[in-house]
Amino acid sequence: MLSKNHIKSIKALHKSKHRRNERQFIVEGVKIVDEFINSDYRIINIYGLNDWVCTNENIDIEIIEVSQKELQSISLLKTPNKVLAIVAYPEVKSIDFVSDDLVLALDTIQDPGNLGTIIRIADWYGINKIICSNETADAYNPKVVQATMGAITRVKFEYTNLQNWLGNLPQNVNIYGTLLDGENMYESKLSDSGVIVVGNEGNGISEEVQALLTHKIKIPSYNNSQMESLNVAVATSIVCAEFRRPSK
Amino acid sequence: MLSKNHIKSIKALHKSKHRRNERQFIVEGVKIVDEFINSDYRIINIYGLNDWVCTNENIDIEIIEVSQKELQSISLLKTPNKVLAIVAYPEVKSIDFVSDDLVLALDTIQDPGNLGTIIRIADWYGINKIICSNETADAYNPKVVQATMGAITRVKFEYTNLQNWLGNLPQNVNIYGTLLDGENMYESKLSDSGVIVVGNEGNGISEEVQALLTHKIKIPSYNNSQMESLNVAVATSIVCAEFRRPSK
Repeated sequence: MLSKNHIKSIKALHKSKHRRNERQFIVEGVKIVDEFINSDYRIINIYGLNDWVCTNENIDIEIIEVSQKELQSISLLKTPNKVLAIVAYPEVKSIDFVSDDLVLALDTIQDPGNLGTIIRIADWYGINKIICSNETADAYNPKVVQATMGAITRVKFEYTNLQNWLGNLPQNVNIYGTLLDGENMYESKLSDSGVIVVGNEGNGISEEVQALLTHKIKIPSYNNSQMESLNVAVATSIVCAEFRRPSK
Repeated sequence: MLSKNHIKSIKALHKSKHRRNERQFIVEGVKIVDEFINSDYRIINIYGLNDWVCTNENIDIEIIEVSQKELQSISLLKTPNKVLAIVAYPEVKSIDFVSDDLVLALDTIQDPGNLGTIIRIADWYGINKIICSNETADAYNPKVVQATMGAITRVKFEYTNLQNWLGNLPQNVNIYGTLLDGENMYESKLSDSGVIVVGNEGNGISEEVQALLTHKIKIPSYNNSQMESLNVAVATSIVCAEFRRPSK
């Protein structure tokens, strides 16, 4: 049986501050835990119901069998799904731009759902490096991890001063940014490699970062819709689809 | 001052059953209430803080001035934004397909956030008719209304038996559906008009509706990503962008 202190120490990881101090985060559910087991992440331990444990006996990770009630007590989900894992933060490595990379840069995405959805989009479109401004939501927030549907195991992150990172890129790298008053992206030359910057939900791309863009683009609406903007994850998906379009 | 019963009657509209019985729903926040005031919807009354009331004196709608505490007591938002309106459900009109329409059909979208985001996408792409299966989330759920960012005032809905609605379309109407095993949409002929069906978050498009599709399409991932699928609102946005692309 899990002691009260044990439960408390797990639940503490629901909070950002404790995650950062402990350098550990929580992953829940059969499918996504499975993705982490098969990834490069180091799993510290796993809390599983009896039927999950029985079908996963061969895994070389410490597994603690728990009751439904115990799982409920450590889970953030309304209906916990059989298993919860504690995973170690990966070693922080700085991300370098390599010549044929297509990289996403997030200028302060604050909503965990948006961040998770963006990571899933990146993975779908073969973008495996994401640079996050230091003010971007924590990628290891459980809501982010769930929303990525496993994509988080395949995409690399770096949290950094975005302005400096962009400023240090080689001169020939195209830096695209989506802005409401940019050039129609269907009339722009979108290169196969480069950096795509997406901005904050309310304020868009900061002025400092805008100054570093080499191309300002926009997604045109149809027949000048009265709708002023798109959700940031939606806009990211449309732009990434266009960059990866077979003919563009 | 609002009486307890008055507060109770407003809060009842947070629940789907009461909304349907009363045929009224709640809209919150300065921007979106403003969109409703300027729309065809009939507003029953408005509860506003003093500063909102002072700048909106010329509106021909019953306005009840409330305190911050009263607004908090009737609001669903953590930080209510100055004004809340009670709006009447529009008269139910059946939606007919007109020859050059591009229409969205939702086969049981269950998450209010997804539904709201899809309505916003539809508005952006000039799609102003949405057919919802009867099992689709209630468009007048407050979470949906907020997520549409006002688009809901410009898009028409009909909740109906989707299978029957599609079955009764003229024979020459193209019915597209997004499926994981469809034809690459970049290699498909996408017509300017027709119906785009999107399916449920977990189960996709039902078999009965699949049988009525004239074109099964998919959004290809880049280099066979391991990611199995996209969020349904994201997939809808990529498909709508492609249908509305200046050259396709």
